[in-house]
Amino acid sequence: MALLVQKYGGSSLATPRQIREIAKQIARARSEGTQMVIVVSARGDTTDDLIDLAREVHPEPSQAGREYDALLATGEKESAALLALALLAQGVAAISMTGAQAGIQTDSVHRKARICGFDPAPIRRQLAQGKIVIVAGFQGVDREGQITTLGRGGSDITAAALAAGLGAERCEFFKDVPGFHTADPRHVPTAAVLKALCYDEAMELGSVGAQIIHPRAVELARRYRIPLLIRQTLSEAPGTWIQEVAPMENIHGIRGVVADTRVVKISVIGVPDRPGVAAALFVPLGQARIKTDMIVQNISHEGLSDISFVVAQDEAQEALAIIQEKARSLGAVEVQFDPEIARISIVGGGIASHPEIAGEMFAALASVGINLEMISTSEIKISCIVRQEHAQKALQILHDRFELGKGDAIEN
Amino acid sequence: MALLVQKYGGSSLATPRQIREIAKQIARARSEGTQMVIVVSARGDTTDDLIDLAREVHPEPSQAGREYDALLATGEKESAALLALALLAQGVAAISMTGAQAGIQTDSVHRKARICGFDPAPIRRQLAQGKIVIVAGFQGVDREGQITTLGRGGSDITAAALAAGLGAERCEFFKDVPGFHTADPRHVPTAAVLKALCYDEAMELGSVGAQIIHPRAVELARRYRIPLLIRQTLSEAPGTWIQEVAPMENIHGIRGVVADTRVVKISVIGVPDRPGVAAALFVPLGQARIKTDMIVQNISHEGLSDISFVVAQDEAQEALAIIQEKARSLGAVEVQFDPEIARISIVGGGIASHPEIAGEMFAALASVGINLEMISTSEIKISCIVRQEHAQKALQILHDRFELGKGDAIEN
Repeated sequence: MALLVQKYGGSSLATPRQIREIAKQIARARSEGTQMVIVVSARGDTTDDLIDLAREVHPEPSQAGREYDALLATGEKESAALLALALLAQGVAAISMTGAQAGIQTDSVHRKARICGFDPAPIRRQLAQGKIVIVAGFQGVDREGQITTLGRGGSDITAAALAAGLGAERCEFFKDVPGFHTADPRHVPTAAVLKALCYDEAMELGSVGAQIIHPRAVELARRYRIPLLIRQTLSEAPGTWIQEVAPMENIHGIRGVVADTRVVKISVIGVPDRPGVAAALFVPLGQARIKTDMIVQNISHEGLSDISFVVAQDEAQEALAIIQEKARSLGAVEVQFDPEIARISIVGGGIASHPEIAGEMFAALASVGINLEMISTSEIKISCIVRQEHAQKALQILHDRFELGKGDAIEN
Repeated sequence: MALLVQKYGGSSLATPRQIREIAKQIARARSEGTQMVIVVSARGDTTDDLIDLAREVHPEPSQAGREYDALLATGEKESAALLALALLAQGVAAISMTGAQAGIQTDSVHRKARICGFDPAPIRRQLAQGKIVIVAGFQGVDREGQITTLGRGGSDITAAALAAGLGAERCEFFKDVPGFHTADPRHVPTAAVLKALCYDEAMELGSVGAQIIHPRAVELARRYRIPLLIRQTLSEAPGTWIQEVAPMENIHGIRGVVADTRVVKISVIGVPDRPGVAAALFVPLGQARIKTDMIVQNISHEGLSDISFVVAQDEAQEALAIIQEKARSLGAVEVQFDPEIARISIVGGGIASHPEIAGEMFAALASVGINLEMISTSEIKISCIVRQEHAQKALQILHDRFELGKGDAIEN
């Protein structure tokens, strides 16, 4: 029997009415004879409310990772039980499970744990009894039995991991948007929904600010060859497929353009130019599981050089604390912190085979007077750091220049 | 090293400020060198809010006991993690545990599970590391790993069970009242706080409406000889001790008078007077773990008799459904349902040795024109069912008649 994994985000489950509607949607999908595993996030603002509470009793609750995880994991457990109740009320056999009950084993890095094992037996046992299994996303349990969480967007990772571990036919992600757009439609009115992306493109788009699906979920799906479908909750729109080869190629090979303003630039000024300096800075950041991006080291100047990099806003304070300590022990001149930036990225599988694209991007931005502070390129992505106030103008000019919202995209 | 178990109710933990204050109180108690295990309830109205949510997605969520329990158990987990965070913020080593993590094993009767086993090793391991252990009350886990809950007031049971299983020196219950009163001070202004009660008296007072501590918690403490102390949160008042023999006896041997209006009378009219009828009614109620009280069967009249009993308001609908079905199959004439009653009880170890007390109670009630509908007596308690509108008058006359609020009680 075919197995389908579906994931519902918190904004889709915010009210009892939404939960009842989603239960009906699931019951309909189920009546087509598919086995179903549903992964849920915490409802609405539950997670933020819990974080606020934690901050009122502890100055930096995230440093008490074990308790922080034990607290935050309750939000998804609540959603899972409520959705199971709503399905039972529809006369549909259903059972909720915590991450631990669902066999999701992680390492012990609180707040940013990684799934390191999955025992499919508990879920398979319930599926065999004809039940729909509702799993609390975002969480697992380590070898000691401690509750862990997977970080923001972690429910996406849970869904992809379950789809991989159970050999699902596909994994569907229900969002409050109809799929991946060629650009954020709030900023670019002509943006359109993409019919399909390959895994790499979706990962790059996800990692540069299109908060549709967590890049690690896409990475997992790619490794296990699980097709993903991004759909809008309670809508008949076809959504965006993410799979091995996107079925169509548009003329430029550019899928979309993304602006991310939730990033911060950190610069270490005047560090000695000798081996091991970069390692001294970036190894401790990696150990803290802080993702750095666009690392740039300028040319040495009288034996001193500057190192700049970009981190996500919500990890910036932690990164800054680590870097300030390391900069001191390296004898650096100073550490600068710049939150007023935006990262503008174009993403598409055609970038590698169209070397002219980078120049076209820089020229388009220059044509409207936007200065570039940092640049980084990969096989399928080009990113530039600009002043934050230029983000929207940059989005619009690039969307126009590469004629996005046409070709393989479908009308929004 | 001495071990102390403390339990904090939901109203003591409602706001972040209260949680911080309680963390300070615990830190002070801890600095006296005692090992500490803290049991917490869900914060403020959390449990009621979760029940409301459940009702919005399921017409009778309590019938879906497994999911209901999985939902409700999240409230105490939240409290436990928040209190652990608040202690860590004070620089006190602390760790929170769910019921399952704390080794609390129960049977599989959802919503009303009973603790059937306790593994002290996980808590002892943390205590040995110098940590204060915060346990989510009200919950456990059955042999299948399903989350169960112990029913309303279940955190009291958790605290007593942990005190028993860990051999605690005593178990303290922090409430929003300064202890057991001779009568409800909202209704009887002269009521005073009792210094001490024996276990039996506390159980009887608890089972007839003085919602200070769950009777099953007292029962457990009695079996394992754990002294209990009822105290007011963040107060220096001495509270009420509950232990084997109350240190003083007052002249009448009456400890208090209690009115419970949260009860309902159910009467089965015209059942055949033959063996097995009472069993046919009460065995299924017992299987549903519904507690019945004051069962009265009148004298047979032309081969038919009437059976009346009292149940708690929140179990009345469930009891009624069971009784109506059984009454039909027994060929009873009708089932009556009367919520307009109150149960007035006097409780004290002296009742058995003072046979005049019952008559004095009935005479006192008659002197103010109160009619008695049902009567039941035990070694240490006499209860009467009266019209609900007479409850307060009954309380006052009995409190006066037996001169409560004097003798061994301390001033309120």
